[in-house]
Amino acid sequence: MAILTMLTDFGTRDYYVAAVKGVILSAAPATTIVDISHEVAPGDIAEASFLLAAAAPSFPPGTLHLAVVDPGVGSERRLLLVETEEARFLAPDNGLLTPWLDRGTARAIERPDLYRGSAGATFHGRDRLAPVAGALLAGEETGRVGPEITDAVRLTSRPARRDGEVIEGSVIHIDRFGNLVSNIPAQWLWADGTPQRIDFELAGSRSARWVTHYAELAEAEVGALSGSAGTVELALRGRSLADHWQTRRGAAVRIERRSLPPG
Amino acid sequence: MAILTMLTDFGTRDYYVAAVKGVILSAAPATTIVDISHEVAPGDIAEASFLLAAAAPSFPPGTLHLAVVDPGVGSERRLLLVETEEARFLAPDNGLLTPWLDRGTARAIERPDLYRGSAGATFHGRDRLAPVAGALLAGEETGRVGPEITDAVRLTSRPARRDGEVIEGSVIHIDRFGNLVSNIPAQWLWADGTPQRIDFELAGSRSARWVTHYAELAEAEVGALSGSAGTVELALRGRSLADHWQTRRGAAVRIERRSLPPG
Amino acid sequence: MAILTMLTDFGTRDYYVAAVKGVILSAAPATTIVDISHEVAPGDIAEASFLLAAAAPSFPPGTLHLAVVDPGVGSERRLLLVETEEARFLAPDNGLLTPWLDRGTARAIERPDLYRGSAGATFHGRDRLAPVAGALLAGEETGRVGPEITDAVRLTSRPARRDGEVIEGSVIHIDRFGNLVSNIPAQWLWADGTPQRIDFELAGSRSARWVTHYAELAEAEVGALSGSAGTVELALRGRSLADHWQTRRGAAVRIERRSLPPG
Repeated sequence: MAILTMLTDFGTRDYYVAAVKGVILSAAPATTIVDISHEVAPGDIAEASFLLAAAAPSFPPGTLHLAVVDPGVGSERRLLLVETEEARFLAPDNGLLTPWLDRGTARAIERPDLYRGSAGATFHGRDRLAPVAGALLAGEETGRVGPEITDAVRLTSRPARRDGEVIEGSVIHIDRFGNLVSNIPAQWLWADGTPQRIDFELAGSRSARWVTHYAELAEAEVGALSGSAGTVELALRGRSLADHWQTRRGAAVRIERRSLPPG
Repeated sequence: MAILTMLTDFGTRDYYVAAVKGVILSAAPATTIVDISHEVAPGDIAEASFLLAAAAPSFPPGTLHLAVVDPGVGSERRLLLVETEEARFLAPDNGLLTPWLDRGTARAIERPDLYRGSAGATFHGRDRLAPVAGALLAGEETGRVGPEITDAVRLTSRPARRDGEVIEGSVIHIDRFGNLVSNIPAQWLWADGTPQRIDFELAGSRSARWVTHYAELAEAEVGALSGSAGTVELALRGRSLADHWQTRRGAAVRIERRSLPPG
Repeated sequence: MAILTMLTDFGTRDYYVAAVKGVILSAAPATTIVDISHEVAPGDIAEASFLLAAAAPSFPPGTLHLAVVDPGVGSERRLLLVETEEARFLAPDNGLLTPWLDRGTARAIERPDLYRGSAGATFHGRDRLAPVAGALLAGEETGRVGPEITDAVRLTSRPARRDGEVIEGSVIHIDRFGNLVSNIPAQWLWADGTPQRIDFELAGSRSARWVTHYAELAEAEVGALSGSAGTVELALRGRSLADHWQTRRGAAVRIERRSLPPG
């Protein structure tokens, strides 16, 4: 009962996702395949990395996660397998797997015996990653996909940081509801007791009430809360805050702790 | 070979749907999961209720339907399990399960032993409903999820009605093709023989030919027919009638039976 | 471990796809269902045919492909089963299965004993094709779905052609990335050695460098390559070429071979 998740920027209009699944099921017919998302913005490695990191903890141990956001497809960039204690991850070596590089073993995939012959070199998701995924799901040993490496590509995104009374981070995801998901761990605010109100900067000085869930907010009120990914999230009751403030992913968020009540 | 369906307003850009599935498969790995839709308008409980009622009869007995449209997430609103002779339904207690309340037993879910610890209180689909669904799919008895209740929240939408020569209802769904799906049972028109033409009001006085299928219509002709949900549906050949008439869900539909031919 | 693929123009907002799956799983609960796409433009049979032809070769032998793009639903148009050595295909008899008609046996489905009773005649995907698919997946013999026929409807799309130094074809698909997929077999260019640059006409005289993968292109450079469907594809690095050139599906592509280097 092997489980494979798929995360791509392929969209769902084309046949691309299905082609990958067909190749995987050809090698490992009993696989349960779960889509994470195929609507990553084309080539947006950082967004893919966030989504995978947010979804992966919900899956059972041993799950194989296949992520294909691959603007360098066909070039000399490597393909990676990263194995941690909880799961295995397959993706191009372009930084997408950064969150797991320090927690597991990375291997550069070298299995031309498994690759599918193909007229073109534009679809390694189908022609290289899928057959390797299929082999792993069918029982191939992790150690046989290729040599260990220590120089995998890393995303250089800056993590959130604390400096005295100031917390700085950024908006790393905007979800369907228009909520702004930051990279600031929610515990950083909790550590001093749950704040009643926080002051922050995001395209100007702002203020938000700290709540535990959206329904606590009054209509059109902005709130800050501990989001489902464990980080500080900003939301507007009943509407898209991203639309309301014209906020884009990457926007800087700065919170001053002096506004927190004494712990 | 348990089957679970999922209906949400999560969209498919985010990791939310996958996270719910991961939790369910962690508890019940052999589950076959079928998506109904994740594109319910955010918070639109009535639309979710319609879609679930339209889809559920196609599934085999014993299917578990999980519906998460939950604007009150995190508040004191209850979570429900409704069991009928045909199926089981899990959803927030916000009216979404109204169509099944009179046909089955409702229980308020009280299983903190199953809930997932989580930083936030914004994702009960993943942290509460999913583990309960997983337990049920893995064999937990229905009676053990919580006490029976009789005061579940009901949607107050007005059903279609007949009064002498007049039938009144409303547009309860607009589908991808722009067809207007009403809540008027198609049999109400059939009862007097299949009409050749019906007069109705919907943003003004209108007329439509009664047909059995779309291809009977001439290009750009409006027709009325018995739709796939068993209710009266209005369609424009080859185009979106909703766009053409600028009709929105909720629009009133009034049909005068005097226009029917003698049965 | 039977595999069924689904390709429709139903979209994913409605309950239509799920209803078909429910009926299939009712008859054949162990089926693994894979979506190819549900975003075919409403009624666009040619697009559906292209997507199915591009996806099918990735699936294991014996896969059953169900394609429902059915503007004539409810009319006298037949429903087809086409069986080739590799796979089986179910679809309305409207040309969608043209690519397989010369490679297999076509049958007109006549199994009213399997059809679902339904108020309307607008959803044969659920009420007729799905129960036939379910029966086949549960082991029903192909030969028992209906009589062989030789007059199945064919799409009249013109294939690409070579005439002396000139190759003529058309854009048969525009993918999510805005790449223009033609119907010109990539081997036609390879046969004289891989060209360095090709001259072509597509809304005016154009030129493109022949590359093996997208990442070879400079930013904003147009390239031609052998796409994942095995045909000539035109792409713009980092952006949608379809948007940039305002190209639509069906646009004529004309390549002069004199621009190829000597083989």
